[in-house]
Amino acid sequence: MNRKGILVVLSGFSGAGKGTIVKRLLSDYKQYALSVSATTRAPRPGEEEGKAYFFKTKQEFEKMIAEGAFIEYARYVDNYYGTPKEYVRQQLDAGRDVILEIEIQGARKVKEQFPDTLMLFVVTPDAATLKERLTGRGTESPDVIRDRLRRASEEAEGIEAYDYLVVNDDLDTCVAKVHALIESEHCRISRNTDYIKEMQKEMKSFCSR
Amino acid sequence: MNRKGILVVLSGFSGAGKGTIVKRLLSDYKQYALSVSATTRAPRPGEEEGKAYFFKTKQEFEKMIAEGAFIEYARYVDNYYGTPKEYVRQQLDAGRDVILEIEIQGARKVKEQFPDTLMLFVVTPDAATLKERLTGRGTESPDVIRDRLRRASEEAEGIEAYDYLVVNDDLDTCVAKVHALIESEHCRISRNTDYIKEMQKEMKSFCSR
Repeated sequence: MNRKGILVVLSGFSGAGKGTIVKRLLSDYKQYALSVSATTRAPRPGEEEGKAYFFKTKQEFEKMIAEGAFIEYARYVDNYYGTPKEYVRQQLDAGRDVILEIEIQGARKVKEQFPDTLMLFVVTPDAATLKERLTGRGTESPDVIRDRLRRASEEAEGIEAYDYLVVNDDLDTCVAKVHALIESEHCRISRNTDYIKEMQKEMKSFCSR
Repeated sequence: MNRKGILVVLSGFSGAGKGTIVKRLLSDYKQYALSVSATTRAPRPGEEEGKAYFFKTKQEFEKMIAEGAFIEYARYVDNYYGTPKEYVRQQLDAGRDVILEIEIQGARKVKEQFPDTLMLFVVTPDAATLKERLTGRGTESPDVIRDRLRRASEEAEGIEAYDYLVVNDDLDTCVAKVHALIESEHCRISRNTDYIKEMQKEMKSFCSR
């Protein structure tokens, strides 16, 4: 089977370990590509074009917005950040599963444009563990912690927009689990229609002989 | 997480290895239960009640039909065969994933009554391999072979009613794949609503303190 890549959204609470999971998927398996964002912020020392980001001027970025070149984009402080459609399409066509580590608002926009996106939400084993992770670093002010908890609570309200829940109890298990979820998704009937139609045709031909 | 069992329908072409896959799932993993059918046919020597079948008289069976006690049933030649609802419910409630090895007409009836049934369809790597397996035993008449091919072709037309396609290329890989598909299904958001609601509630409570 010539398989097409799957667009995978990985969301989850801050502190649930999304970033580590994504890194491990990219290093442990060859089939994954990380979506590279475009941004108008200046490159930091050592940041290569097309690795961490595609660097754009504000004018370029706004032109791309106008052309509908982004799956989703947002403005933080004075800079734009966006997911270029073209790059994602290329990777998917090359058979790579593209991972988008993104929060819920962005995830919803992605799902609108790519309805067969696989939507994964990573959680800590329970709310108390999450609270510990969000508050336990001991370096932030009560205000910052309160903001984080509020944001996490808002994100929790959006979980139903996702397809699967992944509990990050043990990292190795969790990475294997996410990989298995993506592999399973490749078996979905609706992702194998060409293969099925071909098989149906061949089998009909056996009967008519 | 206290997880509830999943009802799994396993269909596929005759010759694709369904029976072997089911046997391996039951022996390799503890979480599975095979649905035990009821029948009006007489027990064969060594067949224990409740193991291969629940043995019923015709009268008992028809009473069960009238009471809606079957998920699906059919009559072959002079005997009834059916899947008792009660047994399946008990196993699911005990957290066991129940496997139903069944053909497509039965599978459709199961899906109607248990809409969250996981529907798997097992295929040989390609139609030619299937043809080989169906014709290659060398013991059947051309008529029997033609019938088998026609039946397989009819079944192929129904594949789109299933959720996932499993290619049985190598048995070990295939068994692991089916197990992974079922494990993945346990992560589905809609199967974890209690857990999610609990987490949402707890996280709200952190914010209101």
